[in-house]
Amino acid sequence: MINVEMLSTGDEVLHGQIVDTNAAWLADLFFSQGLPLVRRNTVGDSLESLVAILRERSEHADVLIVNGGLGPTGDDLSALAAATAKGEALVLHEAWLQQMERYFSDRGRVMAPSNRKQAEIPASAELIDNPVGTACGFAIQLNRCLIFFTPGVPSEFKVMVEQQILPRLRQRFTLPEPPICLRLTTFGRSESDLAQHLDGLALPPGVTMGYRSSMPIIELKLTGPASERDAMLALWPEVKKVAGESLIFEGTEGLAAQIAGALNARSLSLTLSEQFTSGLIALQLGRENAPLLASEVVPSQEETLAQTARWTAERRENRFAGLALAVSGLEQDHLNFALSTPDGTHALRVAFSTTRYSLAVRQEVCAMMALNMLRRWLNNGPVAAEHGWITVVEDLYLP
Amino acid sequence: MINVEMLSTGDEVLHGQIVDTNAAWLADLFFSQGLPLVRRNTVGDSLESLVAILRERSEHADVLIVNGGLGPTGDDLSALAAATAKGEALVLHEAWLQQMERYFSDRGRVMAPSNRKQAEIPASAELIDNPVGTACGFAIQLNRCLIFFTPGVPSEFKVMVEQQILPRLRQRFTLPEPPICLRLTTFGRSESDLAQHLDGLALPPGVTMGYRSSMPIIELKLTGPASERDAMLALWPEVKKVAGESLIFEGTEGLAAQIAGALNARSLSLTLSEQFTSGLIALQLGRENAPLLASEVVPSQEETLAQTARWTAERRENRFAGLALAVSGLEQDHLNFALSTPDGTHALRVAFSTTRYSLAVRQEVCAMMALNMLRRWLNNGPVAAEHGWITVVEDLYLP
Repeated sequence: MINVEMLSTGDEVLHGQIVDTNAAWLADLFFSQGLPLVRRNTVGDSLESLVAILRERSEHADVLIVNGGLGPTGDDLSALAAATAKGEALVLHEAWLQQMERYFSDRGRVMAPSNRKQAEIPASAELIDNPVGTACGFAIQLNRCLIFFTPGVPSEFKVMVEQQILPRLRQRFTLPEPPICLRLTTFGRSESDLAQHLDGLALPPGVTMGYRSSMPIIELKLTGPASERDAMLALWPEVKKVAGESLIFEGTEGLAAQIAGALNARSLSLTLSEQFTSGLIALQLGRENAPLLASEVVPSQEETLAQTARWTAERRENRFAGLALAVSGLEQDHLNFALSTPDGTHALRVAFSTTRYSLAVRQEVCAMMALNMLRRWLNNGPVAAEHGWITVVEDLYLP
Repeated sequence: MINVEMLSTGDEVLHGQIVDTNAAWLADLFFSQGLPLVRRNTVGDSLESLVAILRERSEHADVLIVNGGLGPTGDDLSALAAATAKGEALVLHEAWLQQMERYFSDRGRVMAPSNRKQAEIPASAELIDNPVGTACGFAIQLNRCLIFFTPGVPSEFKVMVEQQILPRLRQRFTLPEPPICLRLTTFGRSESDLAQHLDGLALPPGVTMGYRSSMPIIELKLTGPASERDAMLALWPEVKKVAGESLIFEGTEGLAAQIAGALNARSLSLTLSEQFTSGLIALQLGRENAPLLASEVVPSQEETLAQTARWTAERRENRFAGLALAVSGLEQDHLNFALSTPDGTHALRVAFSTTRYSLAVRQEVCAMMALNMLRRWLNNGPVAAEHGWITVVEDLYLP
């Protein structure tokens, strides 16, 4: 088992002005490739800290992925730290300097003198190509550890990891078989409620049940070695039974993508009317290429459930839409949800106990409630089931 | 200077299924309080790793904030790791158990037996109250280090840090004066372009210029000790001059909040028509309580700039709106932006060189372009200035 670690660098990351999405992306990718990280570390733009942590981790890790600090500015210190830790000089990589100059001239720009620094790497380093930017990566061997230095710009980082670093790791090490990971996502249940029911399941050896709670959803994840695949598949229906009505999708597709796919497959167009969610449902479905007709975003106002249902039915007719979906009402009170379909209009008045969350999270909850009604109708189920912390206070059906 | 570190725990965080927003939040808060973190660390749900890293960091840090692993499930191991590292037993904290039972009964629920574990803390630990959840925090002294254990649920973590941990740190240590941090945000420029122009500025001692690049914006941040306040304020106009047309706001208010404030202050209502951005502008302004009238989200279609301008002007009239803002067109081509105002309608056709970014980022770019037109009009400036990577290919004014 090779011991892989990551080091994120930069004052902006260390001090939290940037959320470290590169680390999450890398960790997730490596996990799925059978290379789970054993530790992640973050330090700032200090040469002393960088040199110290490179030396420290190089005594423990077989592979260290360092991210950030390869830019053109004075606080970009990774190459200098690598050279210092290794006890060697930085040298100008002429071929990369030419490539950078080409990169700028291809875009009709002149390279700033400050960019020249980006072609300087430690004397013993192997250059790692960056096909989409001016920061080259590089690799050095320090103590037991093979260290890769990568740029902080997410698009450049990702291409370099996928196209340059993973192939080198596959060549150098025999990678273990990737783990099996079965996932499902629930909506409307609490983690302790799910855990109470799942703790009784007997897990095969080496298999773990993980909970990823990210309001308003909880993802359940059964992870284990490839050798336990059959046992895990046999156990999976039990997990789904515990999730019950709260299960909204399996795998990693996401609710909006699943619905967009179903609407497109059935040639069903949709029009939206959003109060409170303020365009969030349109945005989520729009990003998945759902067949949306013109939609509206309206300020919140008090409506009876009968009004919401009737206006949604009218909207479906007036817009010549297959389906119309609406969220309405003042949040202090309960919110109304209506789905108008060729079989009639289903409407629900719902209470959520989510007041302690931010507005953005409460909007996510309502968008998911609305999308879930649509999902349930598309699956020929009743549009609502009360469960967990979702309370239906009134429902209505207009034929 | 006290040496503060953070340890994030949990397989979901380590393996990137969760983006570690708690770490960013804590780091940012502590930085602003004059307690910059010197290092962050992440390990998974392994008792061995947890015990080892607690022992390791307790030799280096004065204060360590540990986050996660206090839940009721089997993979929640932080209390056990703390007791093991300290060489003592876990003991049931009777008072906390009673508080947990009250927490559930107040909500009309029965506590699951698995929750009982959340009242077990190391024998020598000081309990840290959690006013909003069932996971209590606790603190132990290990070697030179005061270690605080906190729950992973963001809302519980934040309340505990603000109400319990910071006051204890202020009591125990003499905290340094918080640093001065001057910020501005640019839109449409590249980091190397900005850096080239800013690298020539002479910075006062101990003052650094930071760049936070998060497409489509770059934040410039001048950070230094409180003693350099006057020198930093004297330098700041130079920084703003370099940002020039690309400066969209100072401080941390955000563009949408700034615009919402200006619209409300001037009693100007706004109606939106969004193609391509698919509701994102409505969502951004809605979250800041902007005075939005009914808006529309429409599928992308090819329009001439004259059509976009005319339809936006009509929309303003038909809706009795103070202002109407529109994004339209097919992205493969250029996008049209129009702002209809009491002084007439301003329209721009714009090209962005952003094709290598994800759809979500390209939508963010267009939403910001539209909001920036609105900001410039509100500030009595021309609605557009071409700069950096924003190219205006056509413009139009309807009186």
